[in-house]
Amino acid sequence: MKGSRERPGADRVRRSLLMTTQSTAPELLVDRWFNTDHPLTLAGLRGRVVVLAAFQVLCPNSIASGVPQARRIYETFAPSDVAVIGMHTTFEHHDAFNSAVLKAFIQEYRLKFPIALDQPNPAGPIPHTMERYQMRGTPSLVLIDRHGMVRKHAFGAVDDLRIGAEIGALTQEAAAAAAVARSSAA
Amino acid sequence: MKGSRERPGADRVRRSLLMTTQSTAPELLVDRWFNTDHPLTLAGLRGRVVVLAAFQVLCPNSIASGVPQARRIYETFAPSDVAVIGMHTTFEHHDAFNSAVLKAFIQEYRLKFPIALDQPNPAGPIPHTMERYQMRGTPSLVLIDRHGMVRKHAFGAVDDLRIGAEIGALTQEAAAAAAVARSSAA
Amino acid sequence: MKGSRERPGADRVRRSLLMTTQSTAPELLVDRWFNTDHPLTLAGLRGRVVVLAAFQVLCPNSIASGVPQARRIYETFAPSDVAVIGMHTTFEHHDAFNSAVLKAFIQEYRLKFPIALDQPNPAGPIPHTMERYQMRGTPSLVLIDRHGMVRKHAFGAVDDLRIGAEIGALTQEAAAAAAVARSSAA
Amino acid sequence: MKGSRERPGADRVRRSLLMTTQSTAPELLVDRWFNTDHPLTLAGLRGRVVVLAAFQVLCPNSIASGVPQARRIYETFAPSDVAVIGMHTTFEHHDAFNSAVLKAFIQEYRLKFPIALDQPNPAGPIPHTMERYQMRGTPSLVLIDRHGMVRKHAFGAVDDLRIGAEIGALTQEAAAAAAVARSSAA
Repeated sequence: MKGSRERPGADRVRRSLLMTTQSTAPELLVDRWFNTDHPLTLAGLRGRVVVLAAFQVLCPNSIASGVPQARRIYETFAPSDVAVIGMHTTFEHHDAFNSAVLKAFIQEYRLKFPIALDQPNPAGPIPHTMERYQMRGTPSLVLIDRHGMVRKHAFGAVDDLRIGAEIGALTQEAAAAAAVARSSAA
Repeated sequence: MKGSRERPGADRVRRSLLMTTQSTAPELLVDRWFNTDHPLTLAGLRGRVVVLAAFQVLCPNSIASGVPQARRIYETFAPSDVAVIGMHTTFEHHDAFNSAVLKAFIQEYRLKFPIALDQPNPAGPIPHTMERYQMRGTPSLVLIDRHGMVRKHAFGAVDDLRIGAEIGALTQEAAAAAAVARSSAA
Repeated sequence: MKGSRERPGADRVRRSLLMTTQSTAPELLVDRWFNTDHPLTLAGLRGRVVVLAAFQVLCPNSIASGVPQARRIYETFAPSDVAVIGMHTTFEHHDAFNSAVLKAFIQEYRLKFPIALDQPNPAGPIPHTMERYQMRGTPSLVLIDRHGMVRKHAFGAVDDLRIGAEIGALTQEAAAAAAVARSSAA
Repeated sequence: MKGSRERPGADRVRRSLLMTTQSTAPELLVDRWFNTDHPLTLAGLRGRVVVLAAFQVLCPNSIASGVPQARRIYETFAPSDVAVIGMHTTFEHHDAFNSAVLKAFIQEYRLKFPIALDQPNPAGPIPHTMERYQMRGTPSLVLIDRHGMVRKHAFGAVDDLRIGAEIGALTQEAAAAAAVARSSAA
């Protein structure tokens, strides 16, 4: 995908955009957090839909489409329903990048949602969270439902209308579950 | 709203974008249909979410944002879940407009979803469906849920992410209802 | 070109975008003028660069790119240097189109530059000016220099930067000629 | 200007977009060059129009509008007529930025035109070329004519049509001058 950044060997990683089988979202491994006064965990966000938006400052499609879309999602949904997390998965240009670059980027782009720096792996270029999620590159978008299951995993640009529909549908699942619970209890 | 077309006296019509109280969607009154071999009715579409997209060929915002968004909605959702209906609400330029203009427009823009020509009212400039829905002008977007209730009524440009979320949520309500029904039956 | 409208047999018409040989621009044949209190002629505009922008109201690329670019050109250059003329070359949908449609279109899109309705040819679908200029379809853009010579003839979307450069260069030619004249006279 | 980056005290620097008085363009002071096998100088480019595009990797408007426009200018004009030079004027985030960031940026955005890293000033945050040109911030665009005179100095987003016209006009000035020279010699 032109302008997106793909990791080496990404063709051996999952290519399908929509999850057919669901799996529990692996916990995040984070080196440093921005825009939050305490580290976030998926366990702590259980009950909310989580939007995990992986990006790199030096990836053109991350800047042109991934990060702006994450910002729009953050501005559209209620935080109590949908938690947006940016994740800088540094898998290339390790010599150029440093956390001061990310800090300046967040400041200049006036991003307000929590952003994590993916934990580097001393044994190789791919950081831990990126590896756990088997991301193909950046930008990547992962939707996690209220029960902590991965429900979508996309690489590259994603359509606003479709992603809006998918997040909207995920937010309703709890209502459905709650309705069933209320109905059963009655 | 710049480029949108507002009917005379529209300031006396409902301005809120999101319906706080729900009301049953009035049936459509149509002069002529395109892109369907039989007339459509809301009654016949009960069980599906209906997206009613009002527009005019000579309204700049209809052409720049309303019609393209209706097309994207049509291409994003399964027709069995979401029915998109374009409605040409001719409330101005009656001397210039005729159904051949609409036919040529549909052909040139390669629109595939059903499109209706709102039934004119001999007693005034506002056609019947537009009047029944108290639309402020074009483009207008109305979301009708699976039970035939109006759930959103917007005038002017609408954000893709938000409208996607709202339609996505509406499509899930049936699942919720069905889940309750299944649970109750068990 | 997707969304542009090509006349029948257009493949037998000139395809090159940039004129290698120059020819005198044929005079305009016009049925009706808008946005001017008197009919315009190329003869009367000699000394100015003329931008002739052919379009149709029912041609998607005319509305999305041709007409907005003509408006930007009109707003960018001094009228004493560059005359912009819109030309509605109705070569299809004759049953649907009428001059009231064009009038309403000009009003709704708030176009301020002179716009002509190309003179129909009773003997066929292609109106006279379109035929004289051998236009392939709409949108078409013709640049005429200060001496009345055709210097560019483009079909479909044209890049703003390039067309700006070409018009900018044409406006300077007179300065060059005047400088030569002054130098010779001295 | 939202998204652009302004230097401290920029309000005391020239604000007019178009130069009324012309001045000789100061020579560039450069720390490091990319995309050229030898250092460039304005003296060496005399005879060509020079487009100097100042930017910063961590400036949103530089990435969204300044750098893409510089690329389009580079792709539109013949290099023998118009020389495009990108200039990274690091005047903030000195702790985050380093030349490896710029190198990676150039690679990822596939920029092909010569790009310079402005020479830092040990005495303060504003690098030397930026200071000499009294740039207000990034993105800034400077047009230098074939005689080495500054003819335009803009801060923030610049319209493609207008900048195209201005560069196109500048390229023609030499033709005018040459025509005068030829005429005088005859």
